[in-house]
This record gives sequence, structure tokens and C-alpha cells, in this order.
Amino acid sequence: MRISVLLEKFKKGLNAVDRIVASKNTLPILSNVLIKTEEGQVVLSATDLEIGINYYLGGKIEGEGSITVPGKVLGSFVNSLSEEKITLESTNGVLFAKTENSEANINGMAADEFPIIPKIIGKEVLEIDGGLLKTAISQVVFSASFDESRPVLTGVYFIVGDNMLKMVATDSYRLAEKTINIPTNHKASFIIPVKTIQELYRIIAGGEKIKIVVSENQVMFLLPDMDITSRIIEGDYPDYEQIIPKNFKTHTSVPTAELANTIKTASFFARENANNIKITLYPDHLLVEATSSQLGNFKSQIKCVVQGEENEVSFNARYLLDALGGVDSAKVKIELIGKINPGVLRPDNGSGVIYIIMPLRS
Amino acid sequence: MRISVLLEKFKKGLNAVDRIVASKNTLPILSNVLIKTEEGQVVLSATDLEIGINYYLGGKIEGEGSITVPGKVLGSFVNSLSEEKITLESTNGVLFAKTENSEANINGMAADEFPIIPKIIGKEVLEIDGGLLKTAISQVVFSASFDESRPVLTGVYFIVGDNMLKMVATDSYRLAEKTINIPTNHKASFIIPVKTIQELYRIIAGGEKIKIVVSENQVMFLLPDMDITSRIIEGDYPDYEQIIPKNFKTHTSVPTAELANTIKTASFFARENANNIKITLYPDHLLVEATSSQLGNFKSQIKCVVQGEENEVSFNARYLLDALGGVDSAKVKIELIGKINPGVLRPDNGSGVIYIIMPLRS
Repeated sequence: MRISVLLEKFKKGLNAVDRIVASKNTLPILSNVLIKTEEGQVVLSATDLEIGINYYLGGKIEGEGSITVPGKVLGSFVNSLSEEKITLESTNGVLFAKTENSEANINGMAADEFPIIPKIIGKEVLEIDGGLLKTAISQVVFSASFDESRPVLTGVYFIVGDNMLKMVATDSYRLAEKTINIPTNHKASFIIPVKTIQELYRIIAGGEKIKIVVSENQVMFLLPDMDITSRIIEGDYPDYEQIIPKNFKTHTSVPTAELANTIKTASFFARENANNIKITLYPDHLLVEATSSQLGNFKSQIKCVVQGEENEVSFNARYLLDALGGVDSAKVKIELIGKINPGVLRPDNGSGVIYIIMPLRS
Repeated sequence: MRISVLLEKFKKGLNAVDRIVASKNTLPILSNVLIKTEEGQVVLSATDLEIGINYYLGGKIEGEGSITVPGKVLGSFVNSLSEEKITLESTNGVLFAKTENSEANINGMAADEFPIIPKIIGKEVLEIDGGLLKTAISQVVFSASFDESRPVLTGVYFIVGDNMLKMVATDSYRLAEKTINIPTNHKASFIIPVKTIQELYRIIAGGEKIKIVVSENQVMFLLPDMDITSRIIEGDYPDYEQIIPKNFKTHTSVPTAELANTIKTASFFARENANNIKITLYPDHLLVEATSSQLGNFKSQIKCVVQGEENEVSFNARYLLDALGGVDSAKVKIELIGKINPGVLRPDNGSGVIYIIMPLRS
């Protein structure tokens, strides 16, 4: 292989695929990036066997071929360069990379040992704006579970249909649901591993169009210049809609940042008490309380107009803070039923996200 | 004790003293901050027994007294507040802190268990601009040693005299010396522990005047609103001036950022080889080389005009990068004698700092 590519474009591609590269993997070749020529294009690929990514860039191909080299070594070399072009040449498993002022010989491995990232045969169910998808991811992904004993909860659930995309994540202690209105003639639902979602978040620049293609056990995100393929988590997602409360006894709106700030302080006092903090809605204010036998106790009030009866519920401060981080409006709506019922948080701007948080015993 | 102080001022004071608070100390009271009234002022104090800090703030004193409370708890509470005033009241070892909307009871300890920070009786040897001192610290402190077997090298050596302040640090593999012209009638030299220097760096805002007072075994930095007292390291600092080379065989100037960038990449290839990189000065360029049997090899050239004979020396890339970080000019001067002699780096703007780096075997 002998190719010449624009350095900026090569950097961009390498940085996109480089994170998929597994750093502490049992299979050494998985920490490599595959560079190959294909149909007049230069393709950079990386995979950790769960996610595969291909980045396509133009360039001058003087000799066809392929090689794999450690992603971190190549990345470190390339990112320090500032010239216009880079020439890459493979000989006997060594990549010779050269710019005007610098050159490196990087020890690699033959490309035929690199796992093939399967081409997905499926249907395109949706096209979505990158910025919109990125925001939605940031609003739900933290609610997914880390507990591998229920694999379906370790993913984000996508539901496509009725000109809507819904994204749901829950660890059974709290739940986030985001609804986006978007034209589609398709119906589909699938669970995407959190790691894929996080990589997608990192890669999306915003402004680009992203196509989602789904097959029976894989999903592919088609971006300009690249595609990301991931397995889908098998199994049925729980019927989550039944736990979203429909009627409330008490509700109010308070400044989002002020509530987050107050809960952050309270959480410091609540740490040795499983993050348990108490929220009480009085007619003219919201009271946050936390108690620590060792440190002391804390309370703070936020003035607000409360509708309905006086009501108190204890929550995990961490879940409240996560949810408030996803509220993209200056004020947040809080809706309560009672001590043993879940509470609801949502932006007051109708931006389509809702957070359900299970109560703690106070 | 019952006092009322401005919240902003209290936050500032608390943040200044809070870092001295030892987090994992055997003596629980050392993780506390002392709040006391003294001569019509409110004083916040913290010490780790090596460094002591006092912060003085005005306020309304309604009752004299004192208390100590965990610095992290009080800090976390106070930093979340945004009101104008805070009232502090101590009763039976508990601090009751109250603002308009929030309040906390924080469990503390009686002030009489708090170690006394000794008042230093010494002479003022220097007054220096905070910004100037801060820059000087950042240019030398990284060269000090972490090796406790030679305690004098674990500090920064201050030499006052002849209308100059010199600051020196060395770990015997590299050395940094900064010279500041500043009026003084005194002569003194003393070694300040790196930790003190780092805390001082953190606390200096820039623009303030700082007085340095020295006694036989202590040094005090007097800032507006606060003072920092530290022990001095006992022992004689080595006669470092003899290792600063006076004559060179080869010298050149290259762009500082470009050299740093190139060495950073080279250091990646040099990691398994004790960071050993080779620098060669040719008549029209500087060549940086690094070799790794596992990863491959790297070389890069920087165009420059070299005076004197061709010369190559191997250095530890880490030390070069540290020194380049302290060079505050667009171009850096490099001066070499030969393979087994130290090399010299310095800014080409005459800003008074010089770096000596010992050679490695290539």
C-alpha cells in the first residue's frame, strides 16, 4: 500500500475511530487501526467486536493494499504534525509514515488478521439531525443500568413509529424518556448498548444528517464520511409506560440551577445516608433537607408557588442531580403524589423529556 | 461565638485556607478549619503542621469565641450559597451557619485542641509583586526532587542579596534557576518545601504585594488579608553554580512550541527506553530522534541556523518538556557542549530563567 492523504482529514478520521480501539484487550489486533484502500477510497477501521467503525477519506492511491498499526502510536504521531499532507507506505508489516519534516516507522500487523466488520443488511428507519440526537442522548443515557444481570436495562431503548422517535433508559430506580417528533413511515424498536450510544455521542459533530439502519440483531448509524455498526441487545424491554404517573397531588416549578445547587450541597450531608434527601412542598416554598449523624444537618428553601396539597418525598440526591442535568429549561416542573410514589421532573418548555424517580424510605 | 460576615469574603477566605487542611491525616483536628474572633477581626486558620495559614476578614462580632469544623463540610455548604451574608454561631461544639434561605448545623471540635500556628519573629528580607513571584514559581518548582533521601533538594532554594532574588530547584538530573532584579538591602538564603511553594502559587492572585519574612527555621509570606507560615528545610544547598556551563561548542534558537510538540511525539516512542531521545544540531536544522524496539522509530527536523560544530546529545524527554514549559518566549536558545556534558535551555528574551539538563547515554 502506498497512499497520500490530507493530514487534517486523516487526523479527523483517526480521532473518530481511535476511541473504539480497545486499550486493554486480550486480542492485540483489536488495539490496532486498519488502514486500507477500497474502491478508490482510503478507509480507516476499528472495532472492539461489539462496535465497528469505518471512516472514508479521499486521497491519492499510488498502490493498493492494507495494514494495521497500533491506534495510539499512529494517533500520537499524527496528532503532533502540522503539515498539509502525509504519505503512508506499508512494507512487511511496518508502516512508514512521512510528512515534510517528520517520519516514523511504526510496527504493525497484517490486515488479514483484523476482524471483519459485517455489512448490515437492514432497513433505514429514520433520518435525524445530529445535534438533535446528541442532545437526546445526553438527556437519557445516564439513566441506563450498569447491572449486567438484566442486560436489556444496560441499553437505551429506541422506539420508532407514528412520526416519533422515543428514547428510553432506566435502571429500575429511575427512568428517562425523550420524545422527538420526526417524520417516519417505519415501525421498529431496538435496544442499543450504552457504549455504542456514548461513542455515537462523541462522534456526532452536530448539524450532520444521520441515518439509522436496523437489521434483526444489528444497528448502523450512517454519518457523512463514516458508519458505526453495533450489536443490538437481545430481549424484551419492560413495559415502562405503566410506571409513568398520570395524576399528581402536588406540583410546582422552581429555577433548575438553584434546585441543582441546593441538592448538591444537601447530597454532601446525605452521603453516609445512601444519598437520601427529603423534599417537601409547602404552599410557598420547596424545602430540601439532609441529615448526617456524623457531619450535622442541612436545610434550605426555595421560594415557589405550589399547587395542591402539602407533600414530602425522599429521593436519592444523585438521581435528582442527573435528571436536573438533563432539564434544558430555566425552570423545572416537579410533580409528586406521595411518600411511596415516584416523583416526576420535566423541563417547563415542553422539550419532550421526562424523568421518573422512585421514592426512598425517609 | 456569634458573628456575621459577608458571604463572598468568607468564601474567599475559606477557599484559601481549605487546601492546607489535611484530608487523610492521623490527627482529626487537622482536617478542621479554625474560626475565631481576634482583635475585632474574624480569623480563619488551617494547618498541616508544616504550613499554617491565617486569613483575616472583617465582620460584625456579636459574641467573641472560636470553634473548629471540618473544612470540607463547611466549604461545601458555603460554596453552594449565593446570599449576601452568613451568620455563624457556635454552641457546644456545633457550628450553626445560617443565611436567608439555608442553614446547617455542622459538628465541630473545641478550638483549644487546634495546634497553634507560631508567630514568626524574623526580618523582612524582600517585598515582591505577586504576579512576578507566581511566574517564577511556575518556572522552577518542577525541577525540585521528590526523593526524601536528600531533603535539601525537595525544596526551592531562595537567595536574596545584591538587589536580586534567585530561585533554584534541582533533582540532580536537571536544574532550574530564575533571577529577578529587585531592590533589597538584605542577604539571606533559605530552602522552602515544595508543598509550601505550591500552596503559595495557588493562593497568589497576581497584582498584590507580598512580603517575605525569615527567621532561623521559618519563613512567612505576608499577603493582603492573609499570612502563610512554613518551616524551612534544614541543611546546606549544594554549590549548584559550578554545574552551570559557561562555554558552549554549539548553539541555536528554535520555535519553543514547535520543539515542545516534536519532543512530545518523540517521547511516545521513547517511553520504553527511559524517555531517551537524541537531539542533533546540524548546520541548518535540529533533528529529534527516538527509537522503540516494540513500536518503531521516529525522527523529525526543525529548520534553524546553528552556530558552531555539529553536535549530538541524548536527554530525558520529560526534562526537556518541563523546561520548555517554563520558557516564556516564542523562541528557545539551546546550547550544547558535547555528548557527556549538560545542555542548556533558556528563553531568548532574557527573562532570567535558565535550565540545565544532564545528558543520557545514547
